[in-house]
Amino acid sequence: MSALPPAVQAPPPAVSTLDRCRELVRPALAEAVGRLHPWVAEMAAYSFGWCEVGGAPAAAPGGKGVRQALAVLGAEAAGADARAGIPAAVAVELVHAFSLLHDDIMDGDATRRRRPAVWKAYGTGPAVLAGDALFALAVETLAAAPGGPGGVRLLSAALADLVRGQADDLLFATRPCAGPERVTPGEYRVMAERKTGALLGCAAALGAALGGAGEPAVAALDRAGRHLGVAFQLVDDVLGVWGDPAVTGKPVGGDLREGKKTFPVLFALGSPAARHLPALLGPAGRPEEAAALIEAAGGRAAALTEARGHTAVARKLLRGLPPAAGATGELLGLLDHLVDRDL
Amino acid sequence: MSALPPAVQAPPPAVSTLDRCRELVRPALAEAVGRLHPWVAEMAAYSFGWCEVGGAPAAAPGGKGVRQALAVLGAEAAGADARAGIPAAVAVELVHAFSLLHDDIMDGDATRRRRPAVWKAYGTGPAVLAGDALFALAVETLAAAPGGPGGVRLLSAALADLVRGQADDLLFATRPCAGPERVTPGEYRVMAERKTGALLGCAAALGAALGGAGEPAVAALDRAGRHLGVAFQLVDDVLGVWGDPAVTGKPVGGDLREGKKTFPVLFALGSPAARHLPALLGPAGRPEEAAALIEAAGGRAAALTEARGHTAVARKLLRGLPPAAGATGELLGLLDHLVDRDL
Repeated sequence: MSALPPAVQAPPPAVSTLDRCRELVRPALAEAVGRLHPWVAEMAAYSFGWCEVGGAPAAAPGGKGVRQALAVLGAEAAGADARAGIPAAVAVELVHAFSLLHDDIMDGDATRRRRPAVWKAYGTGPAVLAGDALFALAVETLAAAPGGPGGVRLLSAALADLVRGQADDLLFATRPCAGPERVTPGEYRVMAERKTGALLGCAAALGAALGGAGEPAVAALDRAGRHLGVAFQLVDDVLGVWGDPAVTGKPVGGDLREGKKTFPVLFALGSPAARHLPALLGPAGRPEEAAALIEAAGGRAAALTEARGHTAVARKLLRGLPPAAGATGELLGLLDHLVDRDL
Repeated sequence: MSALPPAVQAPPPAVSTLDRCRELVRPALAEAVGRLHPWVAEMAAYSFGWCEVGGAPAAAPGGKGVRQALAVLGAEAAGADARAGIPAAVAVELVHAFSLLHDDIMDGDATRRRRPAVWKAYGTGPAVLAGDALFALAVETLAAAPGGPGGVRLLSAALADLVRGQADDLLFATRPCAGPERVTPGEYRVMAERKTGALLGCAAALGAALGGAGEPAVAALDRAGRHLGVAFQLVDDVLGVWGDPAVTGKPVGGDLREGKKTFPVLFALGSPAARHLPALLGPAGRPEEAAALIEAAGGRAAALTEARGHTAVARKLLRGLPPAAGATGELLGLLDHLVDRDL
């Protein structure tokens, strides 16, 4: 593309990027969690996979740490040292943990990363409290960071979107599968951008803001993260129906049995070919036939086309950033890693 | 009212102060709530007493609005116009509403202000979500206010304390009534300052900060609010045992039947005269005998003495503020109103 170095060096594999960022952020994240009330700190540590119930050390699988990586790479994309992104990384990981704790209560999900969800392990009330504490700690961490009010404004806008997306998602469950009240693919896009995209965009944008990036780069990273979030959610939906349960950790047909209004389902419900689909969904449904019908109605292909579209926009936004060492390459690598999973 | 200089005028009664501040803040609070997801906005409006379940307008009793009044008076105490305190007032009322929604879930309290609690009326999951949304809105409101990062720092410190205080309070319930593991009156003071005092202090301090007060005045108002909070909680405890149920809205002996570790109970449990008290507490206890025993052991008098001590410190801190029109007088009037209730 240009007169070579450093942009031409192959970026490290995405897994190395995730590992590097996780190791960089871990001490600050642990320090922040250590400032919580001890009881709440244990629930937080459990949710990160650092301990068992009761506090015994553990090394359970935590999340991939995508959000912290985006924050660190955002700072690097601004030309700053990776460390400039640490407060942003800590804040977004705390917000993510808060949202998982509370979403599991709202959705009645008893399992998270193959362990009992916090509300199952500690009780609903304590899990509500732990989520609140993580939320407050995120705001506190960012308010104390040198980035100042701009950072808190970015985070609070993402928080507001996150909650709106969760409200959309909860209400989707109450709406019919057919007729004018049914959920449209357009509404799904809005929900996914809020519920998943807002925090991914915020992570990269916050890291860039703390790294001293200008407004256009901050805005571009925010938009890239939002498109990545929608793409990620679409891929997750496809894997939820056609993925390998050994890889996804979800039971075969689980999303269909729960009657989840995922994108492939919503797309198929709009097609006359799938008019029998509603009867095949839900706990008394026939998930294998439903999956075949959704595929025949084009739901799988539409979700993948849509995901590729969002990925392409995100990629274009990242390529338009001012070049900064290897950060853009690593961001692109991370993007591919997240949306090309096992497809 | 007179030809005398303003400082000498008798302050208006506290009820007028509360009414004035509530009317001043209401449009901005309603505007903020209107920015929420419509479903969540209804739950928020229900919690403020503005509507019934389903959205029909109501005029149910909301809270007294102590926190918003402290924020407005804090701004006035800084010599600013009352309107300077509005973003602070909105933020602290939203945080208060959030904490009531979530605390009612954690404590299993089915009733709030003589109506079903939000979780009883809308379900636990939706109430968790509505609390989260109010929390996010509070941070968003303050981050957008001209006060800048100092304001968010004050709020996030209060939020962290609020959650710590709730954790303390939940854990008190699991501890024994006797022996070295029992809750001490000193631990109670810390809990009450965090759970009730931190947000009252934050309200006044935030209002003052947005009104342009210097650091010493902001800190003095924060401390005054914290002492007020402890005093308020102590008075609430006394009313919970010996108050008139028609006034308090609490059933006779309710706190004793629930085995709540209130200050009078904790004080009495430290006295050899009350060694039979544990047997009289709880659902199978005898609340009338318990109340008499607590009083004989000095629990009621100790709580009132302690409350008067905190009130005196708060009063002294308020009197030490630079004089600003009638604000100090109104703050003192509010203080007396809140801690001299029906004693």
